[in-house]
Amino acid sequence: MISRKQERCIALKIAYDGTGFHGFQRQPRLRTIQGTLEETLKNLGGIHVPVQGAGRTDAGVHARGQVIAFPVTEWPVPAGRTAIALNGALPPEISVLAAAEAPLGFHPRFDALHKTYQYTVFRRAARCPLRRLYALHERAPLNLCLMREAAADLTGEHDFSAFQNTGRPVDSAIRVIKAVLIEEEDLFLHFWITANGFLYQMVRIIVGTLLEIGRGRLDAAVVREALETGRRGLLGPTAPAHGLCLERVTYKERIFVE
Amino acid sequence: MISRKQERCIALKIAYDGTGFHGFQRQPRLRTIQGTLEETLKNLGGIHVPVQGAGRTDAGVHARGQVIAFPVTEWPVPAGRTAIALNGALPPEISVLAAAEAPLGFHPRFDALHKTYQYTVFRRAARCPLRRLYALHERAPLNLCLMREAAADLTGEHDFSAFQNTGRPVDSAIRVIKAVLIEEEDLFLHFWITANGFLYQMVRIIVGTLLEIGRGRLDAAVVREALETGRRGLLGPTAPAHGLCLERVTYKERIFVE
Repeated sequence: MISRKQERCIALKIAYDGTGFHGFQRQPRLRTIQGTLEETLKNLGGIHVPVQGAGRTDAGVHARGQVIAFPVTEWPVPAGRTAIALNGALPPEISVLAAAEAPLGFHPRFDALHKTYQYTVFRRAARCPLRRLYALHERAPLNLCLMREAAADLTGEHDFSAFQNTGRPVDSAIRVIKAVLIEEEDLFLHFWITANGFLYQMVRIIVGTLLEIGRGRLDAAVVREALETGRRGLLGPTAPAHGLCLERVTYKERIFVE
Repeated sequence: MISRKQERCIALKIAYDGTGFHGFQRQPRLRTIQGTLEETLKNLGGIHVPVQGAGRTDAGVHARGQVIAFPVTEWPVPAGRTAIALNGALPPEISVLAAAEAPLGFHPRFDALHKTYQYTVFRRAARCPLRRLYALHERAPLNLCLMREAAADLTGEHDFSAFQNTGRPVDSAIRVIKAVLIEEEDLFLHFWITANGFLYQMVRIIVGTLLEIGRGRLDAAVVREALETGRRGLLGPTAPAHGLCLERVTYKERIFVE
């Protein structure tokens, strides 16, 4: 039994197709993931509920394992039933995968130990219309060996000042990358990047740089040089948003029973 | 060298996302695959070129291996360069995968030995937003054993009168199904169906019926009974279009060098 006045926190694991959204973060008059979740919760419960997310994904970026949380006081509905109600009311681009009662004060971003993003590249001369919204199309042959060499330089604790775009200033650019894996699967190339935090567009700059190295247009040594000098200009372009997907968020204690 | 007046036939293997189209076949004032191809060819070459396809896919049905062909007389461009020009001019939902000069009089549908369709089902309690346009979402547990038993009854030469919807009358409903394979891949179920020809919505009726059998709502014996009696009413509903994809068309002689 959940009493009406008790303060609680509900955490949800969600997936979404970011194609039709202006990113995660609420923005006036624009369709965003956070805005859509808050609106839907308001329609269901009658009151505004502020939603926090683990990753502030950009416009066009997808998620298969985003974690969100919101405090509730006037909401006498268990987390599991909240998920079912939400799934019935959300647009088809957003789906709740799991729900849990989280400790009071739980914050999906600040409490995360690390996050894993996947970036997908489709490698063939001809475009694939069925994956065009979820994978970057790449025609050029790629030297995976050089790309993996450069990727290895990224792992560990570094000042990633060079690996951010302007637009979201931070106090410190020091982050720990746990792993950068480059996986081949038929015509696809998957970049799996896990870190304790990401700077603004950091994954897309990493992928854009590794692709330039693979194409032979940048030297693999630019990664080390950029880590040392902090110069964004040494690196490749920011890879397009639609290849990127937030896959997993890990916490000290398991939040969801699956 | 291709002379200006020589009559030729160009065959193309194409892929498309059928989501935003009213099916393959040209229809006045509606966006269709055939209509879009003919318009694009007209924009490129200045004259109307009638396009034939191997499969007249319904609205919302996709293709990864549709074959189309068109005769050309005033088109002094080799097939390979036609493909490149088309890929530059077609909308992102359609892509040319391969091109070839075909024998004069080649017809992609009448000359096909058999066609293979794939139908994809996504099995999990929660919807998958990233596959929602390309896979049917199915929550119920499915008895694959019973489904495979019923699928086996479909193979071979039969009168498939029961396995068609009204709307595209045919002289004979006798077809040969070469194989119905049900393949599991993580959370996906793939139906692979190969036949020398398909009646109107035949694949979707087969899948809709096999799913009803898997859910325990229809007896596996209905397949045999429907083949014997020709009664559509014995079978399950027509499965939704968006799970279906035309994968391959096979000819006596290989058309495309890949």
